[in-house]
Amino acid sequence: MYKVVLDVMGGDLAPSSTLQGAELALQSFPELHLYLVGKESVLKDWKRKERVSLCYAEEVVKMEETPKNALKKKNSSIFKGLELLKNGKAQAFVSAGNSGAIVAGAIFTLGRLEGVRRPAIATLIPTLKEPFVLIDAGANVDSKPFDLFQFGLMGSIFLEKVWKRKNPKIALLSIGEETGKGNTLVKKTHQLFTNSQLNYVGNIESKDIFWGDVDVVVCDGFIGNICLKLSEGLAEVILEMLKNEVKNSFIYLLGMRLAKGAIKNFRKKADWREYGGAPLLGVKGNVIIAHGRSDPKAIKNAIKVAINFIKFNLIEQLETAITKTLEVEEKK
Amino acid sequence: MYKVVLDVMGGDLAPSSTLQGAELALQSFPELHLYLVGKESVLKDWKRKERVSLCYAEEVVKMEETPKNALKKKNSSIFKGLELLKNGKAQAFVSAGNSGAIVAGAIFTLGRLEGVRRPAIATLIPTLKEPFVLIDAGANVDSKPFDLFQFGLMGSIFLEKVWKRKNPKIALLSIGEETGKGNTLVKKTHQLFTNSQLNYVGNIESKDIFWGDVDVVVCDGFIGNICLKLSEGLAEVILEMLKNEVKNSFIYLLGMRLAKGAIKNFRKKADWREYGGAPLLGVKGNVIIAHGRSDPKAIKNAIKVAINFIKFNLIEQLETAITKTLEVEEKK
Repeated sequence: MYKVVLDVMGGDLAPSSTLQGAELALQSFPELHLYLVGKESVLKDWKRKERVSLCYAEEVVKMEETPKNALKKKNSSIFKGLELLKNGKAQAFVSAGNSGAIVAGAIFTLGRLEGVRRPAIATLIPTLKEPFVLIDAGANVDSKPFDLFQFGLMGSIFLEKVWKRKNPKIALLSIGEETGKGNTLVKKTHQLFTNSQLNYVGNIESKDIFWGDVDVVVCDGFIGNICLKLSEGLAEVILEMLKNEVKNSFIYLLGMRLAKGAIKNFRKKADWREYGGAPLLGVKGNVIIAHGRSDPKAIKNAIKVAINFIKFNLIEQLETAITKTLEVEEKK
Repeated sequence: MYKVVLDVMGGDLAPSSTLQGAELALQSFPELHLYLVGKESVLKDWKRKERVSLCYAEEVVKMEETPKNALKKKNSSIFKGLELLKNGKAQAFVSAGNSGAIVAGAIFTLGRLEGVRRPAIATLIPTLKEPFVLIDAGANVDSKPFDLFQFGLMGSIFLEKVWKRKNPKIALLSIGEETGKGNTLVKKTHQLFTNSQLNYVGNIESKDIFWGDVDVVVCDGFIGNICLKLSEGLAEVILEMLKNEVKNSFIYLLGMRLAKGAIKNFRKKADWREYGGAPLLGVKGNVIIAHGRSDPKAIKNAIKVAINFIKFNLIEQLETAITKTLEVEEKK
């Protein structure tokens, strides 16, 4: 049995989307046992359900709350859920809630893996070919070169073990492909990667990331979060602008109606919901952060990612790789 | 007469695109006098042309050259062109060449405006409504809070004086709208803006910038450059993905053929070429950096921006505003 905690209260559409997602996940994954964490009133219909345990948490961390504030709410679904992990009752935690609070809560409750200074969020992003991992997508705002180096290592292991990508290519997000392009942080990180054993292919420019030629794109979490949200926002605006153009003519409208299926297929391919959740890598536990706007399908897919983390023993794999890399680095 | 220098050698498509752009500009702007700077062999057909002066520069700065290297090439079209500005022969300089070299060359040759620590590139970006100014789009890689504050001030004056936008709204690019969201640089800059007289509306998330609700988006040049290139790259990839989808079905293909005009109109609206060049604000001279891939139309539009800078006396306006703001800040 895969024991996964679901924070029922987290997300813009919670609790209806999370509960429907739980339902979907239980149907899809017969080896899943779900720990639902949330208000008793919300969970009243879920008593005595097969493969479901309930854990009541009467406090709720709001989406816009600061991590500092959230850390005070020990009876929140985020905290109570993470404690189930800490106590060994469950093996993974999934939440579409306030990501800053989840990161802070996970570091506080579970602690960091040996040798990791800063855990990071790894988000899968669709491209023309296979998706790539953007890491850090927003767990940290001010990072150091060695942090970025570890992000690359962790992202690479995640992609290799969970998504079965062979020997992933790691690239560093910068403003030019050439060595020496970038800010101080990037230049120093570039040196660390170049001197390492990792499959590092150099800098990548942001305009090239969507063509699918690299597997792991490393950046500081402030920039990663800006890139992530910029991509989402721009894709929406482009479709909106196209829609506005089409309105001007019957022929255009007819054309777009005919091509509607193509746009739908594109949307499906470009849809983050397909990939479910983004793991927080570097803490002592499987923590999956789902998108704040997660619908039931996205919740189900985030739970799938959690199951894979358990199945492929990701924490252990990360621990081994980090220890090994640290040993090599220290010997230098 | 508006005396504008054009670097004929700069840009991926130079010199053919720059020379055709020069031709277009001379046709469009009867009060324009162009100083063409480049190799004698390239300019041989341009002798004794009306409203045209030639300046030979036999060295060329390559697109991928480092600014440090470029600074050594005193006989390059960039340097020779900037010197025409410095010596008062011309009033504005336009180049689609290596932007790092133009920034370094302009600071070295022309110097900074009194009180400006770091000049910045201001780029107009299309939105659902009116375009906004992204500043800094890549002149600097490591900036300080007061630099970002000045970027906001300069971007605002540029938009107000050259593009006649009334009382532009300045926003700071961050990972959340709320005060306190962001990295150390953003948090400190937010304080400076909040305490100032400027029309500052707070943080803006990257997903919201394309809706056209703010006029000036301030960020560090490393992030600005990444956002700029990400937007360009993503727009291309989205259209490419749609094209791939359409190939799968005759009906989709037919639909897209019918709606082609809509896509063309969209492309036109989203086209950076419409806005021509991005000024380098904060140096003692009108310096316009055109896109590296500029075609003749983009070159012509960059020259138009240069003419507007001269017409509206932008340097003087910037100087006055900066001095005034510095006085207020010092009194605090």
